[in-house]
Amino acid sequence: MGKVYLVGAGPGDPELLTLKTARILQIANVVLHDSLVSNEVLAIISPHAELINVGKRCGHKLLTQDEINSLLISLTGSHDVVVRLKGGDPLIFGRAGEEIEALIKSGIEFEVIPGITAALGAAAAAGISLTDRRVASQVLFTTVQRGVGKSDVDWGTLTGSTTLVIYMPQSDYAHVADLLRDRGLPGEMPCALVSNASRENQQVRRTVVSKLANAEQLPAPTLLIVGRVAMPFVTEITENGPLLGDGWSRGTQPANNGPLS
Amino acid sequence: MGKVYLVGAGPGDPELLTLKTARILQIANVVLHDSLVSNEVLAIISPHAELINVGKRCGHKLLTQDEINSLLISLTGSHDVVVRLKGGDPLIFGRAGEEIEALIKSGIEFEVIPGITAALGAAAAAGISLTDRRVASQVLFTTVQRGVGKSDVDWGTLTGSTTLVIYMPQSDYAHVADLLRDRGLPGEMPCALVSNASRENQQVRRTVVSKLANAEQLPAPTLLIVGRVAMPFVTEITENGPLLGDGWSRGTQPANNGPLS
Repeated sequence: MGKVYLVGAGPGDPELLTLKTARILQIANVVLHDSLVSNEVLAIISPHAELINVGKRCGHKLLTQDEINSLLISLTGSHDVVVRLKGGDPLIFGRAGEEIEALIKSGIEFEVIPGITAALGAAAAAGISLTDRRVASQVLFTTVQRGVGKSDVDWGTLTGSTTLVIYMPQSDYAHVADLLRDRGLPGEMPCALVSNASRENQQVRRTVVSKLANAEQLPAPTLLIVGRVAMPFVTEITENGPLLGDGWSRGTQPANNGPLS
Repeated sequence: MGKVYLVGAGPGDPELLTLKTARILQIANVVLHDSLVSNEVLAIISPHAELINVGKRCGHKLLTQDEINSLLISLTGSHDVVVRLKGGDPLIFGRAGEEIEALIKSGIEFEVIPGITAALGAAAAAGISLTDRRVASQVLFTTVQRGVGKSDVDWGTLTGSTTLVIYMPQSDYAHVADLLRDRGLPGEMPCALVSNASRENQQVRRTVVSKLANAEQLPAPTLLIVGRVAMPFVTEITENGPLLGDGWSRGTQPANNGPLS
């Protein structure tokens, strides 16, 4: 019987794979991967491994979750090293829970190898400390679905010290801005849009909630960081006035690609 | 002028370093590291690099944050590759915000290299999908400080679909359990304590909020995962009854080391 590795591929840059993941991809016999896994990461998989794309293509699911679970189990009958490769980290918005349960119930040995989740890749790209202790005490990783109503988000009461990281916001930034305002976030609350974090075509746009609806559309995958931590200079604001008062407006000039060269 | 790399050392296992971090540690001239960075990770740093421990030792801070900021800047005058190495990810509870700001203001070139944050290491150890779509829609990374009152946590209203990951809970599990109950979490809400995730002495204990106060003390660093995702079998519960009703009690047998061998 083979063993299944549930592996995080990180945000895209193959150098952001862990050493362990790189090693397992070299000894893999078969790799089931999502569409979110970058071509640069796929390129470092052993040339002897069979590659199976189980993700979405053109919005069409290639396999259902149940079919993926069954495939993982059946492949262990004929392969020693079965890898389930997911963008980011397998345990953050990766549907690994159902796969883990199916493997346990079938008595299949498995191991989870973490990856750099998109939030961390995006924060690094933007140079934003998600839990900057001067203005934040915690960070919420969440999503937005464009559903029938607004009941599709379940953020609870957001506190002023909570940084929000919204995975894969729909390109409808106006809808996201509405949701944020409905939750009481002030229009001047800073946010940063990060597209293709860690990849060569990475882009960062800083804005505020009131201007988010009209922000330039960036190519997917994108991620939105919302909170005081997204201010260009956290201390300047706190030294010169209220957190989101007059002091803030002086710092809102857009930065195109974050602080990094 | 040298360049500063703000680098995540991950949860402890040196194989959980990213390829990029491993490469930078090989060309580093000087490395400023926290006490949380494991000896196994320190062992892979270039033998030619100078090592400076800027973390706490026996609860005593070796350097203040301002002193660390100044040291980073001054070291770029004499070293090409200056590495600031932090446990986990530098942008999650890592105080990188103040360092980034100091570097920008001094015109020093820098780059952030993400790391596997403790929550992801712990979730992998326990085999828990933090955002299992059947019972969770989001995950909150937060902390607990033992302060004068309970105002020291700022969780807002927790929704039933939010997984909580509490970094470095104090060994006073009873205090943490009180905070959770004060926020309306039912006594039968599952949780998992993870100690030394990814290291050889890793331990996982599954329990419920009502039994947390009496749970076995585990050695630091520890992390607490709270939420329905910590149920041993998520679907069994949802198929057989209310999420935390009778169905749950059948599944509460403790698992000592998670599902992995």
